[in-house]
Amino acid sequence: MKIGFIGTGVMGTGVINNLLKHDFEVEVFNRTKAHAQKVIERGAKWVDTPKELAEQNDLVITMVGYPDDVKAQYYGPEGLFAGAKSGQIFMDMTTSTPTLAQELVKEGLNRHVVVLDAPVSGGDVGAREGTLTVMVGGDKVIFETLTPVFDAIAGRVNYFGDAGWGQHAKMANQIMIAATMLGMSETLVYAKKVGLSLPLVLDTLNGGSAQNWSLENYGPRILKGDFQPGFYAKHLLKDLRIALDEAEKMNLALPATALAETLYEKLVDEKHSGDAGTQALIKLWWGQA
Amino acid sequence: MKIGFIGTGVMGTGVINNLLKHDFEVEVFNRTKAHAQKVIERGAKWVDTPKELAEQNDLVITMVGYPDDVKAQYYGPEGLFAGAKSGQIFMDMTTSTPTLAQELVKEGLNRHVVVLDAPVSGGDVGAREGTLTVMVGGDKVIFETLTPVFDAIAGRVNYFGDAGWGQHAKMANQIMIAATMLGMSETLVYAKKVGLSLPLVLDTLNGGSAQNWSLENYGPRILKGDFQPGFYAKHLLKDLRIALDEAEKMNLALPATALAETLYEKLVDEKHSGDAGTQALIKLWWGQA
Repeated sequence: MKIGFIGTGVMGTGVINNLLKHDFEVEVFNRTKAHAQKVIERGAKWVDTPKELAEQNDLVITMVGYPDDVKAQYYGPEGLFAGAKSGQIFMDMTTSTPTLAQELVKEGLNRHVVVLDAPVSGGDVGAREGTLTVMVGGDKVIFETLTPVFDAIAGRVNYFGDAGWGQHAKMANQIMIAATMLGMSETLVYAKKVGLSLPLVLDTLNGGSAQNWSLENYGPRILKGDFQPGFYAKHLLKDLRIALDEAEKMNLALPATALAETLYEKLVDEKHSGDAGTQALIKLWWGQA
Repeated sequence: MKIGFIGTGVMGTGVINNLLKHDFEVEVFNRTKAHAQKVIERGAKWVDTPKELAEQNDLVITMVGYPDDVKAQYYGPEGLFAGAKSGQIFMDMTTSTPTLAQELVKEGLNRHVVVLDAPVSGGDVGAREGTLTVMVGGDKVIFETLTPVFDAIAGRVNYFGDAGWGQHAKMANQIMIAATMLGMSETLVYAKKVGLSLPLVLDTLNGGSAQNWSLENYGPRILKGDFQPGFYAKHLLKDLRIALDEAEKMNLALPATALAETLYEKLVDEKHSGDAGTQALIKLWWGQA
């Protein structure tokens, strides 16, 4: 199976490397060609437009930043749909809106192309180690044909239902993560202010009912002053806005998620830390800009 | 070593059973004698007052509900201090205020008794299985003499410093837990409203960066409609009030913890669910009183 891949950011790079390791032929496109250099060196082949990528591959995966970036890759004279072939599969692994996922499926149907939504969880580590969790929505039979691909990149793949339901599952995931990031920040801020040993706090909390992935993975990074992105603060903010939009449509109040959105907005807008990792939230208290 | 134990609630019962299993002689007292029946059947000996417990044992452990309950056991003509012997050890495993922990140490010094603060994390499961995490403050040398006791009841024991610092560490722990409970509630409420498969959501989230102890342990209980207390909602509310009091003293804003306090207050006061487990928070959305 020939795979086209759009998006060579921190996540995409990890996924592409795992596809190459499993002997898939991978052609890539990225808005900024320089960022694709790493995967090109490992054997991925550069292609100049999404349209060409669609023309030359059986499956095209997109893994970019924002819903608008997704649209930019699919639509337009050089976009994926312009090069679409009957029977082809497109799969959007970007965390995007359920509504856009449904639109892509409709547009795909017009061109006899199946589009799946398949956002992931697991961060840069999961992408690099091929242990991502994938949440899939869309045509179930087509989804099942992609098992070899998922085997190469993921530790867990769950099918949630129709188009957009992968994105809804991802929203549930982001709501949970936002809370652990909030809690981790307040926990470490309290502990530091009191004068507790922070490494000992991490050890203790991760051994009991406070244990969580964020504290285990980001806690040590924060203690080292490492705010490099596993996952961009600006991207979590985007996700929380989508989740809150969807919740509002259902007349559902999510106060903790709304608080997280407010604080990440402050981090991005006032502290200009959108390109930092989500763990940078603690800077709102520590005052390190 | 003869151990006296006050408090045969859900946590204390688990701890006492593990002490008995490890061949410690255990004498018990509880405000309501009937609630001590289970451990008496397993070999613990009933004693009529805290004072007698102090007179007859080398170490006395208290594990009760609120700071006022702790005071009631230590002070007064029938209290622990009234029966205290020189060289004895008292250890309060209740989650209580750092200030009270410091008061008990001072009063103990007057009577040549060492008092440690040693709150725990790990819930009913940890208490039952002897895998609790213990956070200790107070005299370090005395703490180290208790290794055989901790081996019987805990999976992890960390020493945090002077009197009260075990309680501060526990506050850091509760701040983290409050956030995971908030996040879990909003996640499941969103997922249910959208119509996602909830067991699949739990499986997915716990396989990625949203993973946390609360979701792993309480998620399945919520799906079964099981709101039995592993840990009482009213006790978490008490803990959050202590944490916020301490934070206020340090002029530290903890908005997520404050939100959790508000919501648990609502759960306890308006939904009358203080005796339910902390996972009952979701009832604020699901409307089940």
